Amino acid sequence: MTTPAPLIRADGRKANELREVRITTGCNPYAEGSCLIQFGRTEVICTASIQTKVPQWLKGKGQGWLTAEYGMLPRATGERKDREATRGKQDGRTVEIQRLIGRSMRSICRLAEMDGLTVWLDCDVLIADGGTRTAAITGSYIATALALRECGAKKLLKGTVLREPVAAISCGLTEGGVILDMDYAEDSQTLADANFVMSSSGDWIEVQVSAEQRPVKNSEMDVMKDYAAHGIRQLIELQQQALSLTA
Amino acid sequence: MTTPAPLIRADGRKANELREVRITTGCNPYAEGSCLIQFGRTEVICTASIQTKVPQWLKGKGQGWLTAEYGMLPRATGERKDREATRGKQDGRTVEIQRLIGRSMRSICRLAEMDGLTVWLDCDVLIADGGTRTAAITGSYIATALALRECGAKKLLKGTVLREPVAAISCGLTEGGVILDMDYAEDSQTLADANFVMSSSGDWIEVQVSAEQRPVKNSEMDVMKDYAAHGIRQLIELQQQALSLTA
Amino acid sequence: MTTPAPLIRADGRKANELREVRITTGCNPYAEGSCLIQFGRTEVICTASIQTKVPQWLKGKGQGWLTAEYGMLPRATGERKDREATRGKQDGRTVEIQRLIGRSMRSICRLAEMDGLTVWLDCDVLIADGGTRTAAITGSYIATALALRECGAKKLLKGTVLREPVAAISCGLTEGGVILDMDYAEDSQTLADANFVMSSSGDWIEVQVSAEQRPVKNSEMDVMKDYAAHGIRQLIELQQQALSLTA
Amino acid sequence: MTTPAPLIRADGRKANELREVRITTGCNPYAEGSCLIQFGRTEVICTASIQTKVPQWLKGKGQGWLTAEYGMLPRATGERKDREATRGKQDGRTVEIQRLIGRSMRSICRLAEMDGLTVWLDCDVLIADGGTRTAAITGSYIATALALRECGAKKLLKGTVLREPVAAISCGLTEGGVILDMDYAEDSQTLADANFVMSSSGDWIEVQVSAEQRPVKNSEMDVMKDYAAHGIRQLIELQQQALSLTA
Amino acid sequence: MTTPAPLIRADGRKANELREVRITTGCNPYAEGSCLIQFGRTEVICTASIQTKVPQWLKGKGQGWLTAEYGMLPRATGERKDREATRGKQDGRTVEIQRLIGRSMRSICRLAEMDGLTVWLDCDVLIADGGTRTAAITGSYIATALALRECGAKKLLKGTVLREPVAAISCGLTEGGVILDMDYAEDSQTLADANFVMSSSGDWIEVQVSAEQRPVKNSEMDVMKDYAAHGIRQLIELQQQALSLTA
Amino acid sequence: MTTPAPLIRADGRKANELREVRITTGCNPYAEGSCLIQFGRTEVICTASIQTKVPQWLKGKGQGWLTAEYGMLPRATGERKDREATRGKQDGRTVEIQRLIGRSMRSICRLAEMDGLTVWLDCDVLIADGGTRTAAITGSYIATALALRECGAKKLLKGTVLREPVAAISCGLTEGGVILDMDYAEDSQTLADANFVMSSSGDWIEVQVSAEQRPVKNSEMDVMKDYAAHGIRQLIELQQQALSLTA
Repeated sequence: MTTPAPLIRADGRKANELREVRITTGCNPYAEGSCLIQFGRTEVICTASIQTKVPQWLKGKGQGWLTAEYGMLPRATGERKDREATRGKQDGRTVEIQRLIGRSMRSICRLAEMDGLTVWLDCDVLIADGGTRTAAITGSYIATALALRECGAKKLLKGTVLREPVAAISCGLTEGGVILDMDYAEDSQTLADANFVMSSSGDWIEVQVSAEQRPVKNSEMDVMKDYAAHGIRQLIELQQQALSLTA
Repeated sequence: MTTPAPLIRADGRKANELREVRITTGCNPYAEGSCLIQFGRTEVICTASIQTKVPQWLKGKGQGWLTAEYGMLPRATGERKDREATRGKQDGRTVEIQRLIGRSMRSICRLAEMDGLTVWLDCDVLIADGGTRTAAITGSYIATALALRECGAKKLLKGTVLREPVAAISCGLTEGGVILDMDYAEDSQTLADANFVMSSSGDWIEVQVSAEQRPVKNSEMDVMKDYAAHGIRQLIELQQQALSLTA
Repeated sequence: MTTPAPLIRADGRKANELREVRITTGCNPYAEGSCLIQFGRTEVICTASIQTKVPQWLKGKGQGWLTAEYGMLPRATGERKDREATRGKQDGRTVEIQRLIGRSMRSICRLAEMDGLTVWLDCDVLIADGGTRTAAITGSYIATALALRECGAKKLLKGTVLREPVAAISCGLTEGGVILDMDYAEDSQTLADANFVMSSSGDWIEVQVSAEQRPVKNSEMDVMKDYAAHGIRQLIELQQQALSLTA
Repeated sequence: MTTPAPLIRADGRKANELREVRITTGCNPYAEGSCLIQFGRTEVICTASIQTKVPQWLKGKGQGWLTAEYGMLPRATGERKDREATRGKQDGRTVEIQRLIGRSMRSICRLAEMDGLTVWLDCDVLIADGGTRTAAITGSYIATALALRECGAKKLLKGTVLREPVAAISCGLTEGGVILDMDYAEDSQTLADANFVMSSSGDWIEVQVSAEQRPVKNSEMDVMKDYAAHGIRQLIELQQQALSLTA
Repeated sequence: MTTPAPLIRADGRKANELREVRITTGCNPYAEGSCLIQFGRTEVICTASIQTKVPQWLKGKGQGWLTAEYGMLPRATGERKDREATRGKQDGRTVEIQRLIGRSMRSICRLAEMDGLTVWLDCDVLIADGGTRTAAITGSYIATALALRECGAKKLLKGTVLREPVAAISCGLTEGGVILDMDYAEDSQTLADANFVMSSSGDWIEVQVSAEQRPVKNSEMDVMKDYAAHGIRQLIELQQQALSLTA
Repeated sequence: MTTPAPLIRADGRKANELREVRITTGCNPYAEGSCLIQFGRTEVICTASIQTKVPQWLKGKGQGWLTAEYGMLPRATGERKDREATRGKQDGRTVEIQRLIGRSMRSICRLAEMDGLTVWLDCDVLIADGGTRTAAITGSYIATALALRECGAKKLLKGTVLREPVAAISCGLTEGGVILDMDYAEDSQTLADANFVMSSSGDWIEVQVSAEQRPVKNSEMDVMKDYAAHGIRQLIELQQQALSLTA
């Protein structure tokens, strides 16, 4: 293989560099836990709402539940998209993303320790400039942690629910090599892209690689995993800061 | 009639005093016009999106169109409400409000001057602490004005579309008399409430009075109209400031 | 202001004159209360059905409930409209009207006196020649009164449910001045229109004013209220006659 | 087989006797053809609306189309049924009936003679005391004939569309033998029931026999066919009278 | 009437001859009863699933329930049809057929003997070459019989549920006379068609005759009934063989 | 790490051994391409239907389209699941799987070479004993190849559409190590599972790893990839045999 053309990103970032990430906790005065999370221009509001009941099919099973919903404001994107509430159903992409968020968060929760409770995560995208699902997962961890902190203070938990922090980031394959955390313009041009969800242990919660223009080699996937692990470690650090700064 | 008990509002406002109103234009980088509007804790994002086509039934009629949609994030309220996109339909209140917004805005537009164009207004409530529909109308005027300004710059308009500014405010009837711009806690306790949409001419675009606990006397409705006119004049001034400060 | 052109109505009515109103009680042999109400050519069947249970969210709250649904036969109008049952949802206008009917009727009911009961109102328009929502409210009062009379006879009520009669009428603003109770042809040409719901006390249950072509002045709204009060007083008298003639 | 108990009907009718049938043409001032048809207490409004276009899939095929929809007002029955428009779909029985009406009517139409036109039949049941589908078919013929008469007067037809009259009636099998045109109380107790659609030729358009409590013998079906043919001949006579009396 | 042209069928069958019928029991390893049934090229999978509960409205009524659903794979037909799950609703034909299957099967069940149980029949068409509804009914009897045999072995029944076998077949009227069990090509050309459901008693469970091109004479209907009875007797024999060969 | 307990599979398979795979091409006489594919007890029918048009949004873009739908018969599973057509929508899992199938197949198609054509893939699961999505992808390749072969014979293609074969398999992580191609019982007990889609180049089209009970280490993911590559190479060989044996 010849040396790839030096990779140049429109905003001057290095290949494995995150966009500026900002986290504003408590953006919703009603929700038990909430944050506004921004990855560059992308903005997602994550709220965690506590219900003191569990779904019908879990009753008497000795465990709680966590579920997630995802939505985009109609003009979150460059062209306005029809409102899902008006069309009467969520589209396939929405369903896929909210299932990913739910699975990712449940995988780090000891549901038995929150018996009788349901955490409803709502991830609503105000601006979609790429990476909305990874921002949503990263923000959901914060909203959930804050909500559970409040539940703990109210003695609603049996023990420690969260096993460890979790965050997520995307990688893309370009002619010039792998890049981390694509914005929308970059995302539109990748040969393949991937989303990684990792816990602080450094092991993988979810990996989703998808060839857009061509299949991905093992060696390329290894670079993606390196970049993703690097990015997620930084995100987990930012999560910890945000949580420690919230009263 | 005996003198009413002196009316005391939890936040110390006078009976005919607005909550603090903040308007942040350009909160959405994609929309042709947008603002975040806050009435106290209530927060609504209004975006105006321009489509260069008109609905099927208007084709060849020599005029443009403006339509509005309204939504609330599931946790905009004290208790989480089911997401309309998940339930598969908008509820009655949502439909009623978005029809009100659309009618109000169309009533000040010369649609023939925007032939071939459709303005899509999206009013999405981040926090609902009372007055979301009046904030939505007041913000929609700004988003529309900004979007039309851009259309004008692109020579897409035949003439001046907007006849005059429009804004809206609520009034409620309490045991202690009429109050302006109720927050959620106040709204829950009114005997009757009303929403007023007025243009800068001082005439009425929409008036909706609804007895909750008891019918409303003519004299009470007159006070409501006075208060509303007073509040809307202030809102129109704030709209003008916001528009003049936006490049 | 110059003198308006003398107002001439196609059917020779005076500006503040109702169309001929006919009320036929007991048109449905199954319903606990029913009437066919006609405002000129407009025909609406109103039935009140009693259920001996309350909605889930009201259980144990010590009160009954009243709710209304509205529909139009597909060919109630000059051009056939798609059947809502086929399209799979009620349109926005339908939702708005049935919410108005329900609110209006509940505002004159002491729901605590009908604890354990639900009144289902169904207002179905056979012919729509303007004023269907006001005919529906006026007829709903009769159907409800008859149904509650039957409930009273069966000892299902704790006390007197109905506070006072209620009826409704529309007004429109034309170049020649305000007119009362428009038919469809008149309604299509008004500058603004309004619907008024008033109880026999002479106070307002609901007022909905909507500028179609231009905003409405306070002085114009005052004329509308005068006309409406005048018309509604006549409708309440007709309701009383119809009720007193029904065994 | 022993002699059956002499069959006694609550309203004193003979086994093969129709209920009183009343037909009121022109009950809808907008529809091109309409009638109110009553079989005893059962009341159905049938309207035929003409559209000067055909469905997409028929374009350029040189023929017109006829289609039917059926609905019941929520309180047409002894117990209120949920409104189909509110539930968001038509139930199976409704779909089955409206398909039957459409097929029956199309079978006597020369669709090529009404090229470019669609007849929309709406059959709406005000009171359902048994036999609504047969009343709907019988009334639909009248509404269609009137609508096509108007089309003919406007020179919209290529030739004679209607081949011959059509009407429909039900039969039921009871312990005491076959009965014609059951009301709701009778219908609830039949061992089997059947609906017959016949043209004036005396041949069968549709036959639908359904065993409720036990299978039907050939000899029983023969009696049913005799009774039905007898009843339908009377209905066709009433149709002709009603049509000849309509200007 | 002149002698009809001697009737020639593309596959050489006689007028009253069935296609080759094959029945494969136990095609589904999970279902309590199942078979694949083939009428010529037509293939339908019938499964009977036992639920140990009854619908809400039957609770405490001392009887079980049986219900049926019908579906076609999108490419069961010559041209692909939209998937009903994607369109969001079953079409009218599907609803009509599954109601017919359910009624037919319930008519031979003593539901009181299966108190507390529900049989869910699923009839899914893999290949639709005419006669899918009759194959579905014929196969449903087998699936139900096998499922009830298992219930009997588990002592879940109070007594014998099935009164007698039931099967179904179609007949069509052609220029050359009546034919039995049409394939799709034949079905497309019939003047009228009919579906017959008969029990082993030789009496009729359901008869549905539908004129497509012209009404059906009594004499023609008699031939149809003869042919159908002849065919159904053969089908019932095949059912018995299949059931006796299944362990 | 200590030596894992020797891994024992209920059916005696080695850790990296596929279940018996059977492919029956041409199972549908109408579809342009079809096969029944079985992975052990799992059975999926894959049909490829050719439409000579493209979706609206692709018109004039010089390329064809391929899309996939997935469904399960209600009793494909141990417990009956509600029919999606009856519930009125596809569930999230279904949507996720059909999107995966579509993306996987498009990634190996040169869509420009099939300009003007759409391939509709329908993957319908008769029996679901684990691995339905991987069987569906593996079978879809065969159905697509057969359908395109027919298109080629009819001169409907501009060039060679398929770049290379593609197939898919699942892997799971158990206490005893990684296993390939889990059946349902195994799948229910894995700590994590993964689905791999690989082309014959040995590179990855899609990788989806999901932690169920605990995160996955890089070393474990490497074993999964090895096993998957091994299994998929065998599947591609079976595909080639099936295709070469089909006329």
